[in-house]
Amino acid sequence: MLPKEDPELKKCKHKCRDERQFDEQQRRDGKQICEEKARERQQEEGNSSEESYGKEQEENPYVFQDEHFESRVKTEEGRVQVLENFTKRSRLLSGIENFRLAILEANPHTFISPAHFDAELVLFVAKGRATITMVREEKRESFNVEHGDIIRIPAGTPVYMINRDENEKLFIVKILQPVSAPGHFEAFYGAGGEDPESFYRAFSWEVLEAALKVRREQLEKVFGEQSKGSIVKASREKIRALSQHEEGPPRIWPFGGESSGPINLLHKHPSQSNQFGRLYEAHPDDHKQLQDLDLMVSFANITKGSMAGPYYNSRATKISVVVEGEGFFEMACPHLSSSSGSYQKISARLRRGVVFVAPAGHPVAVIASQNNNLQVLCFEVNAHGNSRFPLAGKGNIVNEFERDAKELAFNLPSREVERIFKNQDQAFFFPGPNKQQEEGGRGGRAFE
Amino acid sequence: MLPKEDPELKKCKHKCRDERQFDEQQRRDGKQICEEKARERQQEEGNSSEESYGKEQEENPYVFQDEHFESRVKTEEGRVQVLENFTKRSRLLSGIENFRLAILEANPHTFISPAHFDAELVLFVAKGRATITMVREEKRESFNVEHGDIIRIPAGTPVYMINRDENEKLFIVKILQPVSAPGHFEAFYGAGGEDPESFYRAFSWEVLEAALKVRREQLEKVFGEQSKGSIVKASREKIRALSQHEEGPPRIWPFGGESSGPINLLHKHPSQSNQFGRLYEAHPDDHKQLQDLDLMVSFANITKGSMAGPYYNSRATKISVVVEGEGFFEMACPHLSSSSGSYQKISARLRRGVVFVAPAGHPVAVIASQNNNLQVLCFEVNAHGNSRFPLAGKGNIVNEFERDAKELAFNLPSREVERIFKNQDQAFFFPGPNKQQEEGGRGGRAFE
Amino acid sequence: MLPKEDPELKKCKHKCRDERQFDEQQRRDGKQICEEKARERQQEEGNSSEESYGKEQEENPYVFQDEHFESRVKTEEGRVQVLENFTKRSRLLSGIENFRLAILEANPHTFISPAHFDAELVLFVAKGRATITMVREEKRESFNVEHGDIIRIPAGTPVYMINRDENEKLFIVKILQPVSAPGHFEAFYGAGGEDPESFYRAFSWEVLEAALKVRREQLEKVFGEQSKGSIVKASREKIRALSQHEEGPPRIWPFGGESSGPINLLHKHPSQSNQFGRLYEAHPDDHKQLQDLDLMVSFANITKGSMAGPYYNSRATKISVVVEGEGFFEMACPHLSSSSGSYQKISARLRRGVVFVAPAGHPVAVIASQNNNLQVLCFEVNAHGNSRFPLAGKGNIVNEFERDAKELAFNLPSREVERIFKNQDQAFFFPGPNKQQEEGGRGGRAFE
Repeated sequence: MLPKEDPELKKCKHKCRDERQFDEQQRRDGKQICEEKARERQQEEGNSSEESYGKEQEENPYVFQDEHFESRVKTEEGRVQVLENFTKRSRLLSGIENFRLAILEANPHTFISPAHFDAELVLFVAKGRATITMVREEKRESFNVEHGDIIRIPAGTPVYMINRDENEKLFIVKILQPVSAPGHFEAFYGAGGEDPESFYRAFSWEVLEAALKVRREQLEKVFGEQSKGSIVKASREKIRALSQHEEGPPRIWPFGGESSGPINLLHKHPSQSNQFGRLYEAHPDDHKQLQDLDLMVSFANITKGSMAGPYYNSRATKISVVVEGEGFFEMACPHLSSSSGSYQKISARLRRGVVFVAPAGHPVAVIASQNNNLQVLCFEVNAHGNSRFPLAGKGNIVNEFERDAKELAFNLPSREVERIFKNQDQAFFFPGPNKQQEEGGRGGRAFE
Repeated sequence: MLPKEDPELKKCKHKCRDERQFDEQQRRDGKQICEEKARERQQEEGNSSEESYGKEQEENPYVFQDEHFESRVKTEEGRVQVLENFTKRSRLLSGIENFRLAILEANPHTFISPAHFDAELVLFVAKGRATITMVREEKRESFNVEHGDIIRIPAGTPVYMINRDENEKLFIVKILQPVSAPGHFEAFYGAGGEDPESFYRAFSWEVLEAALKVRREQLEKVFGEQSKGSIVKASREKIRALSQHEEGPPRIWPFGGESSGPINLLHKHPSQSNQFGRLYEAHPDDHKQLQDLDLMVSFANITKGSMAGPYYNSRATKISVVVEGEGFFEMACPHLSSSSGSYQKISARLRRGVVFVAPAGHPVAVIASQNNNLQVLCFEVNAHGNSRFPLAGKGNIVNEFERDAKELAFNLPSREVERIFKNQDQAFFFPGPNKQQEEGGRGGRAFE
Repeated sequence: MLPKEDPELKKCKHKCRDERQFDEQQRRDGKQICEEKARERQQEEGNSSEESYGKEQEENPYVFQDEHFESRVKTEEGRVQVLENFTKRSRLLSGIENFRLAILEANPHTFISPAHFDAELVLFVAKGRATITMVREEKRESFNVEHGDIIRIPAGTPVYMINRDENEKLFIVKILQPVSAPGHFEAFYGAGGEDPESFYRAFSWEVLEAALKVRREQLEKVFGEQSKGSIVKASREKIRALSQHEEGPPRIWPFGGESSGPINLLHKHPSQSNQFGRLYEAHPDDHKQLQDLDLMVSFANITKGSMAGPYYNSRATKISVVVEGEGFFEMACPHLSSSSGSYQKISARLRRGVVFVAPAGHPVAVIASQNNNLQVLCFEVNAHGNSRFPLAGKGNIVNEFERDAKELAFNLPSREVERIFKNQDQAFFFPGPNKQQEEGGRGGRAFE
């Protein structure tokens, strides 16, 4: 357990100011949340369960916030933020070191320049409406995508996109698996001029003249005009032209073999659902786009005041990105514990843009705030053969022990053990700490 | 070749004292062996082939002894010893760096607490009789296992076991393949209290109250009573209750898919067998439990005074654990040799608990002492497509060369080459150095 | 872009002297080329596109020359040169760090001693005629191979070979994938005596006496006579005996399963072919010998004065070895660039024996000199699912963009963009810089 630490209000406000802001409205929201948090904190004084939330990022390598992102692209019309290597602060995440995470934001009616990546990509549309176009072996294919859509971009495929919405910003979360230099990836812009610089410009003029069979003067012109960056405003006409694509039925991948079109996660039947939350999952066994990456994509919408878990994954390491809402998470970690056979509590406040990782075997719970639903996008790496083991509610592992095993394991009569582990009859999503309090008025003291 | 080194008696006795002892009886045995060795050593003075056995662990990263194990669990009733990372002393074993080895010892009539691991596990029962219970997705399955049984525990599966024998200690050798942090694994105890600490205790009381829907007072009790450690004495009644499981025919895995029940290695038909030894093998091509780990498990029982090999594996790296008996091994290693194109002799005395590794391609021979059979459990990593190439006896590689190749390779008439390589007509197991001496009286001088 | 650097003539001559020479004739050729180059260079003074060719190896980790090879074997009759680890100078190539490259040269009528390797091997016969013999599980199989043949040697397989040509030297390029210590491999000589040392000599005489059932005196003789090294002269009779093998039809692998006999790359139908060059490819999907290594082997013969590319591979990293001729290559690299979103030009002069690497996603072009065809052997690692995307000529990626995407990407009217990218109507191989000049007289100034 961590020692207590205090001057949170100052720290919290400071963080609010520095924090990566989705937009102005959100910054105001953020500030408000921040002050609410401070009030809550004061109320919580003396509440031992909260003591460690403030210092999350210092001690634990499982949580990533604004300061762990780097801008790769920044124009007037948008930006791309790339999360540092998961292993930068600790080798504990080396199981996922060949995955990278990035977030693209683009203003309404913008064009994101053609590029290919030395990485496999999976995109999730967190907000907005886009048209994504891929070029592949003398074919070209476009997809209109919206909130909840997952789309796979094979490594090396030239891709460009538009935010086709006139009013709403586009937010896309990308997970990348580099294919060339493990853990590192780059964008290669073929089109472009000064900014983005076209990779054609790295060749000598003589080689380009010969390859393209044109004169240097022409080359200098075509590779010199673009200087607005890789995310640019597009006219209504161009947006219309570029989004006039099949909107309709056959969401079938044109290139055959290992890929196919987008999957809408939120149109799927939820794999867990009750009044406390919903879980949507796209499994690599069902979607060949995710198969070679051995990646599951899921989306949890945790009702305000409710929680998910505790549970653990048997094989998969889960990378979670908060898409909307606030809350906190808790996780037990034996690797960080100073003594063998005990567990370090890992915890962090969650708000939009926070990334946290739960490695295989690590028990974890995610709790939504009282004010808003908490929406979390998850990438589960190493998904094949993974099982989720519940630690509370229906089918929790302790319930499955034999009577005598319970007695020996807890050194208590089995009925006392069962009184604990058989009381919760929900599964996966439960009423959260405060809600239980409101509902039952039970054990309230700790929250006063 | 290594320089000569001497004061072995002192060193040997010292080692005896420090050495990891299976039990009191064995320590006495150890001491005795130790003094015998010292006597042998004095007799061997001037015998150049023995010169390097005393300094094995200093120069070579292929041999692991007591001092390379660490205690993870230690109670009055048993312990778990974990071998250091194979690559701790040298990068030469980085091919197996994501495998770990551990040894569990438990007294008669004991209970080993429920835990899951962030690793795939394969267990081998080296001694004793256990009941192993696994929990998996609202099912539970138990297996009675005994000497020679191999059982696979999928990563993350909660497992507990008993030593159901009233008199005999239980020894289980485990090989683990971490799934979360490569090369590192941890046990996660769900049940328990103070010791083993339950991972539930890493969550805040409020989260646990909400998740389990019970009050803090109850939680404090249930997670506070166990303080005897993760290996505890169990009453005769509890042992009886926990071992009353299917003893019978259908050794079929209950969870479907990629796993199934135990394999008894010693009930299999030996793949090599003569009066000098027997080899039992469980190949991943035949046993789906071993397939995804690409692991072969084998057991060699080398008759006293006999030897196995020399031979080499084409692809597999072989991790050997001495289960019973004494002897020594020799291996040729080009990587450790100071000059390109020559070979360092790697050798070590073998006794119960010594671990040694033979990487792919490395010629190796294992020799039993005159006094006892040498029993060696082997895990062969990277087993798919592996072949064993004999370097002596039937089918040895030199015999297969064409006549003219033999002459060019050895710069000798081919009949002289064949006189050497065609004389031994046994396969794999041969009479050992001293035995040949006794049998044929041939070339004895070197052993006087 | 690199700063300009000058005193090339001195450096170039110096390099000529130090340079790894295939034979005397070639050294003379080399010197001549060297002076021609110097003349060319003087003519090129002021030609900015050439400014960085002289300093290739200092700045870039993608090019390997004589000084990056190490001699593993060196006898009067031949040698084996092994390229340093690809990652020795930079982690950028860590995607191929478990591949190694080696070149074997042997005089006419020589015997290369039996050895096995702790690595998977693929050999390409770059020059000459050999007979290669493999030993495997009491079978032996020999193959007569010649220029253009690819042959797979499974890890651990004892192999020996002869140069069966009376006059021509044998050159074999090997790519190795270590199976034991990642990135490191060794040869294990079973036959031999003092030189090559037999690995049998690493065992104690007593163990060998017992294993082979012969006396020490005999052993000392058989393992003492060879002292000429692992590449030795062979008599006409021995060559005849060792090359009297099936020359005929059934090029079928004898060992079943995952391998089969040699593939002649140059007898295949070229995958790209025009007057400017030819490309031959052996794909792992078509040849099971290459499947488990996920390796494509290809051979490009670029007509003098012509060029290949620019293009990029979507997933594969391409290791190229210049087998014949001269020229240069250019590549765009974002990883080495100092600023995000721009590209470092990587370039190097090419001559026989130079190795260069193009990682996935990196645009690359290879240009033959005016004097000789440039012949390049390529190993493409990570070949499964790879596509080659052309950046000039038929099907180039920019042509595939929609009209409006072209306008937005280049900030120019689409017809101006198309004027550039639709002019070249050849595919993959094009007339090179100077040749275009001669042919069309277009834009000549830059070359004066």
